[in-house]
Amino acid sequence: MADPQAVRTDARRHHDPTVRGFASDNYAGAHPEVLAALALANGGHQVAYGEDEYTDHLQRVMHSHFGPTAEAFPVFNGTGANVTALQALTDRWGAVICAETAHINVDEGGAPERMGGLKLLTVPTPDGKLTPELIDRQAWGWDDEHRAMPQVVSITQNTELGTVYTVDEIRAITEHAHAHGMKVHLDGARIANAAASLNVPMRAFTNAVGVDVITFGGTKNGMLFGEAVVVLNPDAVSHMKHLRKLSMQLASKMRFVSVQLEALLAKDLWLRNARHSNAMAQRLADGVRSVDGVEILHPVQANAVFARLPHDVSERLQKRFRFYFWDEAAGDVRWMCSFDTTEEDVDSFVQALKEEMAR
Amino acid sequence: MADPQAVRTDARRHHDPTVRGFASDNYAGAHPEVLAALALANGGHQVAYGEDEYTDHLQRVMHSHFGPTAEAFPVFNGTGANVTALQALTDRWGAVICAETAHINVDEGGAPERMGGLKLLTVPTPDGKLTPELIDRQAWGWDDEHRAMPQVVSITQNTELGTVYTVDEIRAITEHAHAHGMKVHLDGARIANAAASLNVPMRAFTNAVGVDVITFGGTKNGMLFGEAVVVLNPDAVSHMKHLRKLSMQLASKMRFVSVQLEALLAKDLWLRNARHSNAMAQRLADGVRSVDGVEILHPVQANAVFARLPHDVSERLQKRFRFYFWDEAAGDVRWMCSFDTTEEDVDSFVQALKEEMAR
Amino acid sequence: MADPQAVRTDARRHHDPTVRGFASDNYAGAHPEVLAALALANGGHQVAYGEDEYTDHLQRVMHSHFGPTAEAFPVFNGTGANVTALQALTDRWGAVICAETAHINVDEGGAPERMGGLKLLTVPTPDGKLTPELIDRQAWGWDDEHRAMPQVVSITQNTELGTVYTVDEIRAITEHAHAHGMKVHLDGARIANAAASLNVPMRAFTNAVGVDVITFGGTKNGMLFGEAVVVLNPDAVSHMKHLRKLSMQLASKMRFVSVQLEALLAKDLWLRNARHSNAMAQRLADGVRSVDGVEILHPVQANAVFARLPHDVSERLQKRFRFYFWDEAAGDVRWMCSFDTTEEDVDSFVQALKEEMAR
Amino acid sequence: MADPQAVRTDARRHHDPTVRGFASDNYAGAHPEVLAALALANGGHQVAYGEDEYTDHLQRVMHSHFGPTAEAFPVFNGTGANVTALQALTDRWGAVICAETAHINVDEGGAPERMGGLKLLTVPTPDGKLTPELIDRQAWGWDDEHRAMPQVVSITQNTELGTVYTVDEIRAITEHAHAHGMKVHLDGARIANAAASLNVPMRAFTNAVGVDVITFGGTKNGMLFGEAVVVLNPDAVSHMKHLRKLSMQLASKMRFVSVQLEALLAKDLWLRNARHSNAMAQRLADGVRSVDGVEILHPVQANAVFARLPHDVSERLQKRFRFYFWDEAAGDVRWMCSFDTTEEDVDSFVQALKEEMAR
Repeated sequence: MADPQAVRTDARRHHDPTVRGFASDNYAGAHPEVLAALALANGGHQVAYGEDEYTDHLQRVMHSHFGPTAEAFPVFNGTGANVTALQALTDRWGAVICAETAHINVDEGGAPERMGGLKLLTVPTPDGKLTPELIDRQAWGWDDEHRAMPQVVSITQNTELGTVYTVDEIRAITEHAHAHGMKVHLDGARIANAAASLNVPMRAFTNAVGVDVITFGGTKNGMLFGEAVVVLNPDAVSHMKHLRKLSMQLASKMRFVSVQLEALLAKDLWLRNARHSNAMAQRLADGVRSVDGVEILHPVQANAVFARLPHDVSERLQKRFRFYFWDEAAGDVRWMCSFDTTEEDVDSFVQALKEEMAR
Repeated sequence: MADPQAVRTDARRHHDPTVRGFASDNYAGAHPEVLAALALANGGHQVAYGEDEYTDHLQRVMHSHFGPTAEAFPVFNGTGANVTALQALTDRWGAVICAETAHINVDEGGAPERMGGLKLLTVPTPDGKLTPELIDRQAWGWDDEHRAMPQVVSITQNTELGTVYTVDEIRAITEHAHAHGMKVHLDGARIANAAASLNVPMRAFTNAVGVDVITFGGTKNGMLFGEAVVVLNPDAVSHMKHLRKLSMQLASKMRFVSVQLEALLAKDLWLRNARHSNAMAQRLADGVRSVDGVEILHPVQANAVFARLPHDVSERLQKRFRFYFWDEAAGDVRWMCSFDTTEEDVDSFVQALKEEMAR
Repeated sequence: MADPQAVRTDARRHHDPTVRGFASDNYAGAHPEVLAALALANGGHQVAYGEDEYTDHLQRVMHSHFGPTAEAFPVFNGTGANVTALQALTDRWGAVICAETAHINVDEGGAPERMGGLKLLTVPTPDGKLTPELIDRQAWGWDDEHRAMPQVVSITQNTELGTVYTVDEIRAITEHAHAHGMKVHLDGARIANAAASLNVPMRAFTNAVGVDVITFGGTKNGMLFGEAVVVLNPDAVSHMKHLRKLSMQLASKMRFVSVQLEALLAKDLWLRNARHSNAMAQRLADGVRSVDGVEILHPVQANAVFARLPHDVSERLQKRFRFYFWDEAAGDVRWMCSFDTTEEDVDSFVQALKEEMAR
Repeated sequence: MADPQAVRTDARRHHDPTVRGFASDNYAGAHPEVLAALALANGGHQVAYGEDEYTDHLQRVMHSHFGPTAEAFPVFNGTGANVTALQALTDRWGAVICAETAHINVDEGGAPERMGGLKLLTVPTPDGKLTPELIDRQAWGWDDEHRAMPQVVSITQNTELGTVYTVDEIRAITEHAHAHGMKVHLDGARIANAAASLNVPMRAFTNAVGVDVITFGGTKNGMLFGEAVVVLNPDAVSHMKHLRKLSMQLASKMRFVSVQLEALLAKDLWLRNARHSNAMAQRLADGVRSVDGVEILHPVQANAVFARLPHDVSERLQKRFRFYFWDEAAGDVRWMCSFDTTEEDVDSFVQALKEEMAR
């Protein structure tokens, strides 16, 4: 295998690799250690569609995190992971209870409904977190054929609002769900940030408290692309490989997904990256708190900071750093930190915020 | 951006990069020039979900191949590309005419039906190629609500049987389809091999003869992953971005798909790779023809060789080189060449075939 | 054609035809005039699947109500009608804005999502009625591929809570929807009750104010079964016959649906029935208001009375008359009147309510 | 309950009840005994959605035909029955093996694929009948995720070509299917004709030989509308009520479907009707055989006669009696007899055929 750096390519660089913003953790590229792993897996022939050595080895890596019954099914992206997992957890007549703000409800273009035929039974939440009481607003009517049957509770850890469930909060949800015959899916698009925030292993708030299936997020934590549906409770699902294929999520050269996951998970890159982006969010929140007139909206527990500030200030600030409005009418914005966010990025941003607020 | 080769990674090499077989062109890894391109695109922040510089530049690259009206929508894999494209080309009441051997019919796990709600109207063919006459076996009943309405003809170039449509053959199909108000989709999972085989630009057998939408295949021609739906006739479809998203085919860090496509298509890597794998298939076919008792089944026009030989010979040979039975009962096998197949690979294989035939 | 009453049948009567309750307007049977119409349409051969004389004549009957551009597509039931209509009004990437209490959201077993692939964008309402302001909570993001695109506003007239939109309220909705490029569907499962309540022709709150497609409800107003999708704006939809068929709503012997609709709509049976059931609900509400401790929850504008009373009273009362809890935890019940509800039924029920409240 | 004949109705008769043809058995109306049954079930209130006395009694009637474990789920039409049954028999990854000529493949507008997400694995047959050998052309690859998994064999009895499986032929299919872990669905749109033809009880070729679920056809045998999914093997399916509802096949006033089925099945109306239509087809076939130049195409075993004759003769004949071309290019036509076809109808038709052949 040739050194790719020594190899010419007809592609050219089209962007400035020194520019970073706070728009999304998927605006970042890949962590260099992840990119390096691709070269390792290249060369020679490997069986396609997941029968390769890298995907095989990945199972052992996953066992070290989630125990010996865990099985990982690498897929392409988060929407694909979620829809595959939720199809596996439901019958044709099943429905999914989730927060109104859940990614599956608001950011997947209707894929759960259109591709999975899934009805989402949504609940408004103050902070993106479900509770047994909130779940009960939709957890009823299992015998009523007029109602799509609640079969799964789907939670996001950490949530779309940057908050993190405690271990006890998730245990309360899984116990409640299981007591009603429902299974629990955890959308872990940012699961590493949650583990870093709670300072516990990932299994502490998944297997150990009864979560059945997770979506393990890699892209937002330094991969080029790739997530995995990780089945923690093998009794909860069946025929995952068929479901992944028919959901258009089966990579032919799967070694290139699996080796990225290995690079993250074999040792502690997943945690280093997450701790860093969380720390940058804390640094950002600290800086923002020093600016009068800017309100932080949710507890900053992972790598997101939600804030409310004057609309015109946001607009001027957006010309200097990329970020998104969360609720434009209310003036709410979201600032995301990434594995590659630097202290200088944060400090420059806070300085810019101060300047724009002072204008 | 650090040199990935200089960077440590916690991932390890688990395979022997010197071993190659003839099972599939997606058993191969990535071409080194493609891998090198990833490093170029890395670093800094780029807008996610396709608003990046690489995806923007890709449009210009595609224009150089398919003309100024072409628009490329990078996606993850071939099944995703096909199902996205076919949804775009059909109404809710539409159906797709294709060969019985089409990948969409036999190798996509029911994704067209399950995810796209598409009915496939299949036609048996001798060689994987449709003709106006064969199309007419399903092209009728547009006013009959009891029948899923034929709205698209989908052809595969080169076909799943290693045969290549001539330019005239495709023109005859598109003219026939358009005359009946149907659109034409070309599944180009191996489109580069077809262009190399015909020795014409890709546009000669697509835009130039009226194909409306193609699936451009990158994975089998040296990419790590990634394909593109390329819309050639903008009037034929609408809202491709919405369809790609709801079909779970929208990559967040799309720059890493687009830069691979650029590496292939900016100059001639796509063609070098395809010519090489085609040449290896010719060398293999020539070698096989020298072996008594082995019959070549279809014209060898691209990178596949289909052959019939004694079942026990195949089984012994499979212990030395990986490949698949195509029709096990009949004793038919498929041998695929790849961009990384060497003359030595081919010669060793032919030698092994001779030895096993002689036992 | 023999007189069916003179004909023996091997079926037997299994129920007491003198018992009526307040559970639902579909607990009632068929109006005798509707039943009589079936015999008229029987005998001889008629083209199946809607090419019969009765379905043809039905168009003229519908024109008398909804104007010359209206076209009726008889179907089997309300869920089928709604899902067929909403598929017609949406692209594959479309979504439907509706009240959280809408029948399509809470009473159709997930059919819109599972069969139609439709995402419902729901809005909480105080009284089951949408307004432009409430619609705006979901009417945004048309260019955002991460969001199922709002293409239809679906309202129910009269609503599932027994309230009736005024003509002006509907006009405000259609103008708002059309201004945003959305179409308007009206679920008219009880449209006759609404017309009777408003004392206007049905067209006054449909065609005349811009509603594009309605679901015309027959079953709850005296038919044995049968509804119709009525297209008021022919430009809003396409290929309704294909959609009805693939939605499994195409009756082979359609004459028997169409002649029932004719019996209702040729003269005034639809209105007589609706006025009667509305009047019975008013009589019931008047009676209930005379009972201390029972609260009426919504304006009684059609044939439903919603009330709150002590849970144990409801349970005792349910042993004497059938009806349903609407929100069992809150003690809320729903009492429906039907075309066959008598003054004696109402008075006996009120008397029973008084007795049970007094215990 | 008033006598419907004594009741005025605003509907009018629009057709000539003395005209009959040979186009389809669903061109006929309802049998008078079925129509009479509706009046019996009318009046008073009955619980909606299948909790009524008629649907309850229907179960006992079905037990008398199909044994004590049979459970009937009345639905609206054949497409709805088939799609509901096949969804019940398949997982999300399942597929259905059927004859290329099966109604589910060619006459249901893509509903199995679009509504059920089902892939049909079709097999060409000479006479519409599957055999274990023909099934084996699609019965393979259960472990292959690239293939929709064959989980059901669906046969039609009698077939769409008017042929009837013998008891032994069906037993061979069910044994073969079960040995491969597949279930068997029997589309019995004309099951009564098959029983009459074989002169055995319906259970002899269903339960007794291992069929798991049937679609019981009522409409073509004298009902106004209505079919039933009848589950013979309760272990084969689950949650039929939920599936019926989400498939838009749940009638609110189900008593009116159930009492029609009771009228057919309580005693022998189902058999009288079927024997009559079969006898008329035999009479027709006998007459046709006496006409030189007209070829009967399939064994006439039920109520259909397929024939080949000069195209211009068919066209002239169609001006006198309604019937359909089956394969217009080949000159093939289908003549269907119904429960209301008379000897005079047949004799007049044969006479007309003779006259047109002689021109």
